[in-house]
Amino acid sequence: MPPLIVDVHTHVYPPAYMQMLRERKAVPYVHDPANKDEVPRLIILSSDNDPSIPLDQRGRPVDASYWNIDVKLSFMRQHGINCSVISLANPWLDFVEPQEAQTWAGKINDDLDATCARVNQAADPENKLALDQKETLFAMGALPLSAPADVVVNEIRRLKTLPHLRGVIMGTSGLGKGLDDARLDPVWEALQETDSLMFLHPHYGLPDEAFGAPGVTNRYGHVLPLALGFPLETTIAVTRMLLSGVFDRFPKLKVLLAHSGGTLPFLAGRIESCILHERKFISGGGDVPGPQRSIWEVLKENIYLDAVVYGKAGLKAAVTASGSDRLLFGTDHPFFPPLSEEEKDWPSVTTNYKAIHAAFDTEAEAVADVLGRNAARILNLK
Amino acid sequence: MPPLIVDVHTHVYPPAYMQMLRERKAVPYVHDPANKDEVPRLIILSSDNDPSIPLDQRGRPVDASYWNIDVKLSFMRQHGINCSVISLANPWLDFVEPQEAQTWAGKINDDLDATCARVNQAADPENKLALDQKETLFAMGALPLSAPADVVVNEIRRLKTLPHLRGVIMGTSGLGKGLDDARLDPVWEALQETDSLMFLHPHYGLPDEAFGAPGVTNRYGHVLPLALGFPLETTIAVTRMLLSGVFDRFPKLKVLLAHSGGTLPFLAGRIESCILHERKFISGGGDVPGPQRSIWEVLKENIYLDAVVYGKAGLKAAVTASGSDRLLFGTDHPFFPPLSEEEKDWPSVTTNYKAIHAAFDTEAEAVADVLGRNAARILNLK
Repeated sequence: MPPLIVDVHTHVYPPAYMQMLRERKAVPYVHDPANKDEVPRLIILSSDNDPSIPLDQRGRPVDASYWNIDVKLSFMRQHGINCSVISLANPWLDFVEPQEAQTWAGKINDDLDATCARVNQAADPENKLALDQKETLFAMGALPLSAPADVVVNEIRRLKTLPHLRGVIMGTSGLGKGLDDARLDPVWEALQETDSLMFLHPHYGLPDEAFGAPGVTNRYGHVLPLALGFPLETTIAVTRMLLSGVFDRFPKLKVLLAHSGGTLPFLAGRIESCILHERKFISGGGDVPGPQRSIWEVLKENIYLDAVVYGKAGLKAAVTASGSDRLLFGTDHPFFPPLSEEEKDWPSVTTNYKAIHAAFDTEAEAVADVLGRNAARILNLK
Repeated sequence: MPPLIVDVHTHVYPPAYMQMLRERKAVPYVHDPANKDEVPRLIILSSDNDPSIPLDQRGRPVDASYWNIDVKLSFMRQHGINCSVISLANPWLDFVEPQEAQTWAGKINDDLDATCARVNQAADPENKLALDQKETLFAMGALPLSAPADVVVNEIRRLKTLPHLRGVIMGTSGLGKGLDDARLDPVWEALQETDSLMFLHPHYGLPDEAFGAPGVTNRYGHVLPLALGFPLETTIAVTRMLLSGVFDRFPKLKVLLAHSGGTLPFLAGRIESCILHERKFISGGGDVPGPQRSIWEVLKENIYLDAVVYGKAGLKAAVTASGSDRLLFGTDHPFFPPLSEEEKDWPSVTTNYKAIHAAFDTEAEAVADVLGRNAARILNLK
């Protein structure tokens, strides 16, 4: 029998969310072309909203894989995935007017729970992850982060009442000022108290200037913003949490980092060294507290990493930093589809499967942990 | 007998260079305090030139370790380093007026060669790396990159006539527009033809906005710009080289990447995946050529990595990506000195020693390769 495979990194744009994006004209938005032969375009990165590009070619083409759960189930079957923990795709409501945030978060989270319930009807009620069952779903909730913290806290508590919800997905902007914002403390407290995993995911990447002279970003399509900007955004966000003492104040907080931590496992040593050499921190003779816990401790006690890093080299760093019991298979579906429609297996998925097998050589137990057992245990999937 | 130890990542500010920086008032510059009890300050990062900070506290304190080679030799003895390949410290003359660039590069490279000659007099002329000898030095040259490419090419050729020069150090701005600038092709050609290693090193980091809301960068001292900005600058620069086809056009180019590649080993898989999924490239149906060689091939055939990554996790990624025959010990001296003057051993150095031993467990041959044999072979040190 093949091992249980759980995908913890897989996104959906529920139909109601798509409709809202269709009604917008500012990033993020969906453009429906006048010519019905053309496919709709999703413009979610500000660098994609280039006025020099015709609207019908801006952003990326979207198809039913973005909103139709049957397409996701078919993708799961194709790739041997038993269970997906679906999460709202970026940018997670941070553009919604504050007074509408609660309504939208409630609507989307209820929709996610209903979708899971509908799909899971076909599964064994006693053991939804039984390997001979049809595919099953769980979900991570979205938070109304444009609203005040107490509204966010209420939604975190409400998510615990929805049977298929397992933790939350969050971008890097927090309440608008990043994840080291002290106003987020009630949110961290609620996440810690309810034992809710927070899936931290990038969306904004880096400002265009980071990549060099104007025009450089677009010269190579999405490669620079997606391959480098996204992972750095995650790394900066979690490093700011660390530096501001979030993990000191909330030592039981559980954070799943997208894309194997962005670059955190690789840069952890340099971050730790820079902290130890920082004259601004009290430990270096300054007046800023600085973090109290070592980054290595946080990596092994608070951080979980998905295994979406497309190579053995990245996985070796991830597993060395956090351990094979904290690494979780994911696909990033529906993003990175094959460019040719003839390809049934998605190279973006098979690359990660191969990397996991290569990284753990003959350690079958570690492979099984990473592919599904860790997720089932950590997210209490049953 | 302990293994040969070669430090390939160690910087100097020759006295003439220091004097030039003292005469400047714009970044980069050295500020000599009016009060002689205070130490001079080196302001090389634009984020350090914050007008709200008094001049006497701006940037970082500098001491004789920056320019006095006897201090470097003493540091080498303290840490068991047999040979250092010294390189000019950032930002490598890119701020120099074009008409003065050649003069400055010539002056500095001659100075570096003379310094090596003076120090190496004490060594065995037949085998300067004999382990029972005094410390020896080699150097990497600086290039007049604010001048036109033909001036740069001339200096690359001239460096081959200086007996202690081994390759060049270069920042990420190239001739002002980054390392994917086609005007650099004659420079890559000269480096390839003369078999000169190019040491690629960051200096500018990322723009402040990359780290979030205004003020975030300084909130944690130098941690964000140095721990995250520097490695990303390197990663962006080498990725732009790759994407623009530099390694296709110059397949024998040798590039040593600072800080174990910034984040390149970790992100290589994601970069490769994004390239394979890029619709703008010809391979994806677009009209931009895109790179022809795989990033994994470039990592094993063109890239060398220093071992300045302060942890086993980063080293595991580096060695998986490039191999233990391409990883080279370094210290980043004179940066990251101990904050307490009582500490004789620099934690920034001992952390890297420990990481190398931890990463290779019982593989004594690999440890010896990384600590010195690779550098001796690759840089032809004898």
